Amino acid sequence: MLFHVRMDVQLPHDMPADRAATLKADEKARFQALQRSGQWRHIWRIVGQYSNVSVFDVDSPTQLHDLLMSLPLFPYMRIDVMPLCRHPSSLHDDDR
Amino acid sequence: MLFHVRMDVQLPHDMPADRAATLKADEKARFQALQRSGQWRHIWRIVGQYSNVSVFDVDSPTQLHDLLMSLPLFPYMRIDVMPLCRHPSSLHDDDR
Amino acid sequence: MLFHVRMDVQLPHDMPADRAATLKADEKARFQALQRSGQWRHIWRIVGQYSNVSVFDVDSPTQLHDLLMSLPLFPYMRIDVMPLCRHPSSLHDDDR
Amino acid sequence: MLFHVRMDVQLPHDMPADRAATLKADEKARFQALQRSGQWRHIWRIVGQYSNVSVFDVDSPTQLHDLLMSLPLFPYMRIDVMPLCRHPSSLHDDDR
Amino acid sequence: MLFHVRMDVQLPHDMPADRAATLKADEKARFQALQRSGQWRHIWRIVGQYSNVSVFDVDSPTQLHDLLMSLPLFPYMRIDVMPLCRHPSSLHDDDR
Amino acid sequence: MLFHVRMDVQLPHDMPADRAATLKADEKARFQALQRSGQWRHIWRIVGQYSNVSVFDVDSPTQLHDLLMSLPLFPYMRIDVMPLCRHPSSLHDDDR
Amino acid sequence: MLFHVRMDVQLPHDMPADRAATLKADEKARFQALQRSGQWRHIWRIVGQYSNVSVFDVDSPTQLHDLLMSLPLFPYMRIDVMPLCRHPSSLHDDDR
Amino acid sequence: MLFHVRMDVQLPHDMPADRAATLKADEKARFQALQRSGQWRHIWRIVGQYSNVSVFDVDSPTQLHDLLMSLPLFPYMRIDVMPLCRHPSSLHDDDR
Amino acid sequence: MLFHVRMDVQLPHDMPADRAATLKADEKARFQALQRSGQWRHIWRIVGQYSNVSVFDVDSPTQLHDLLMSLPLFPYMRIDVMPLCRHPSSLHDDDR
Amino acid sequence: MLFHVRMDVQLPHDMPADRAATLKADEKARFQALQRSGQWRHIWRIVGQYSNVSVFDVDSPTQLHDLLMSLPLFPYMRIDVMPLCRHPSSLHDDDR
Repeated sequence: MLFHVRMDVQLPHDMPADRAATLKADEKARFQALQRSGQWRHIWRIVGQYSNVSVFDVDSPTQLHDLLMSLPLFPYMRIDVMPLCRHPSSLHDDDR
Repeated sequence: MLFHVRMDVQLPHDMPADRAATLKADEKARFQALQRSGQWRHIWRIVGQYSNVSVFDVDSPTQLHDLLMSLPLFPYMRIDVMPLCRHPSSLHDDDR
Repeated sequence: MLFHVRMDVQLPHDMPADRAATLKADEKARFQALQRSGQWRHIWRIVGQYSNVSVFDVDSPTQLHDLLMSLPLFPYMRIDVMPLCRHPSSLHDDDR
Repeated sequence: MLFHVRMDVQLPHDMPADRAATLKADEKARFQALQRSGQWRHIWRIVGQYSNVSVFDVDSPTQLHDLLMSLPLFPYMRIDVMPLCRHPSSLHDDDR
Repeated sequence: MLFHVRMDVQLPHDMPADRAATLKADEKARFQALQRSGQWRHIWRIVGQYSNVSVFDVDSPTQLHDLLMSLPLFPYMRIDVMPLCRHPSSLHDDDR
Repeated sequence: MLFHVRMDVQLPHDMPADRAATLKADEKARFQALQRSGQWRHIWRIVGQYSNVSVFDVDSPTQLHDLLMSLPLFPYMRIDVMPLCRHPSSLHDDDR
Repeated sequence: MLFHVRMDVQLPHDMPADRAATLKADEKARFQALQRSGQWRHIWRIVGQYSNVSVFDVDSPTQLHDLLMSLPLFPYMRIDVMPLCRHPSSLHDDDR
Repeated sequence: MLFHVRMDVQLPHDMPADRAATLKADEKARFQALQRSGQWRHIWRIVGQYSNVSVFDVDSPTQLHDLLMSLPLFPYMRIDVMPLCRHPSSLHDDDR
Repeated sequence: MLFHVRMDVQLPHDMPADRAATLKADEKARFQALQRSGQWRHIWRIVGQYSNVSVFDVDSPTQLHDLLMSLPLFPYMRIDVMPLCRHPSSLHDDDR
Repeated sequence: MLFHVRMDVQLPHDMPADRAATLKADEKARFQALQRSGQWRHIWRIVGQYSNVSVFDVDSPTQLHDLLMSLPLFPYMRIDVMPLCRHPSSLHDDDR
């Protein structure tokens, strides 16, 4: 099932640069693992923002919550979640 | 280039049923033509809303505006547009 | 899976009384069928509002959307949906 | 009587990890005592948030206030309270 | 127990004057009965608004909901309810 | 004349405990003096909030401002003021 | 005593032109009487809005409420009121 | 002097098509006259909206207000005005 | 030309008292110079707020910006500006 | 293609003065390079704010994102982006 997730990142201005770099590298690694598994189905950067719009494909809301909580940047993000469903007019087989 | 578009539809309660049916049928036809052309790249229904979240793939902001203006339900929709770009961590070739 | 749903009802002031009465009776029947099936797990009235807070237990977001769309009062409601999951500290077996 | 309570937790980023761990353990113990007593009737995690939606069953608004003030995380939470009442259409005997 | 209630009234501009007059007279009579019973403990007009701020003294949230639903102007009001409790510093015996 | 005042208190998390205790004791003393003088006519705690709803009875807006500025917690409060007047339907002689 | 008042006017689009003209002429006459009496101390148009920002000089909040309720356009206005007081740094004798 | 103006147009759904066409033609003529005079210095359509963002170059706020009030669509627009000034870093002579 | 300006001041809680006192004294001196010159035409304190509502009389938006930037408290203020113009119904010669 | 961008700058109060001066000088240099290249087509200061309204002329949303990310003040700015297109009534050849 699909969920629309928007994440806005705000790192504290006084975070040491190496701490920020480690967090971002860990976040990237975690993201790519989830992208490879197909659970992080889409991601786009919002122009001009340290934010992304994503679509997750998961087995349950609980699984989505666990995935989001596992993100290294979770403590520094504002997250909005909207459940999605297939649009009745869509012609695409996999555009759930 | 990609744009994130949210559309919230609100038909007047006193619109005659056949007028509403015609509008919806025209909207569906127009949507499917744009989906087939690849310009309406993604569409999902937001659960519990007469709303959709979509991603358009167009040549310019002007083209996007013309497409949105051409929708039969345009006068009855609130539309929010956000420009998107490829996320630097993405592994997908076409996940612009 | 569980979803938190808030519904705010606003009937047009000029709706004929018998039309409103029919809609409300149909809504009540539909609600009770869903309550009996266990899908409309909880419902409470918000004090001072023509609104309710509900918890649905469904198989998928799509099923929830279809249930909400099937409500006779759907065209007259503002609906907000939040996916829920079990709280890690809960002692209740079925308090998912 | 029932109250709908939403709690959003925001711990300061510079809180020492052991201080946060102690607070969370104390909060969990206090929560479970209130869940066992039946006063904290329902709790759910909101997907993607360090937040919960709860329903309290208390003897008075004053009792609810005292319970909320007694939570170890109270100073770090934004709390919204809505009084609830039984929905007139409900078939459940105890779904007050 | 006490509840803080704000009511904002908005009559449709096209309501016939005699219908509005009847509604207001009925509202006044209902209000005064509740004021005499002590349930509508305080009422004040907000300067410049067709609105009031009130404090109700009722036996339960359910009773408050029933009182508010019984107001003739209920369909034309936006209502906000906040549960109150005695302030710990207060010296007044009955300033619950 | 009467004014409706809502105060939301937010002490910095890093304020030393004895500083907070002194401030609260001073606030309580100042409040009780104003309650005894009749200027702080009503006060209630909002359930679940470190906030109060109050009604002041003062000689002028200037006097109200001076009273509010004199509160020890003033620098840590968000304050909203609404002028009130007697409701035309009220039966109470002193319910200005 | 002084009050800051903002008024936003919204006439229904289907109000007959002569009805609107009469209302506006009555409003102007009422306004000018209050300006001559000194109670409507200042008025300015907000650029680009059918709105004004005003300062009233009245004997009490009740008097202000009665003045505002007496305006012919009152049913078509959104009104926001803020009590003012003399700024401690002001050098003007009458800039209360 | 320059002002940033955003205009959002909302025509009533029941406006007759010829009335709307006349209004739009009149608006276009008035706009082009003001563009030729240099007072309506810039205009852009916001993608997906029946809205524009404009920059006016006028002699005074009063002149701007009179220009905006003279627009045939004024009664159907929401207008937001912000005064602008030259950016201190700008290299353009006429980019006031 | 006239501009309506609202200023909300928020000094950091950890600003040393003498630094705050110096800033406020400098602000007062600057304010009084501008009041004497006639550019800071009106100022009022908003009751219960560390805020003021002011009317400036300046030669241009640029001059207003330079005046506001020159205020010692500028870095600690939230400022909202609205251009004003003479109200067409006003009888006052200088109530621009 | 054109984008409307609003930037609101908020430097931390405890940033050392020389750090702030360096950041602003770097920002100015970067801005002027982009203004010379034609990509930062317009910029205006909003009166009373440490904010600007700008219009960018870029080849793609991605290019705009990269330009904004390259600004030295990016971590201290809130940025809002709206895609623009030529207004159909415009007479200007280059007023895209």
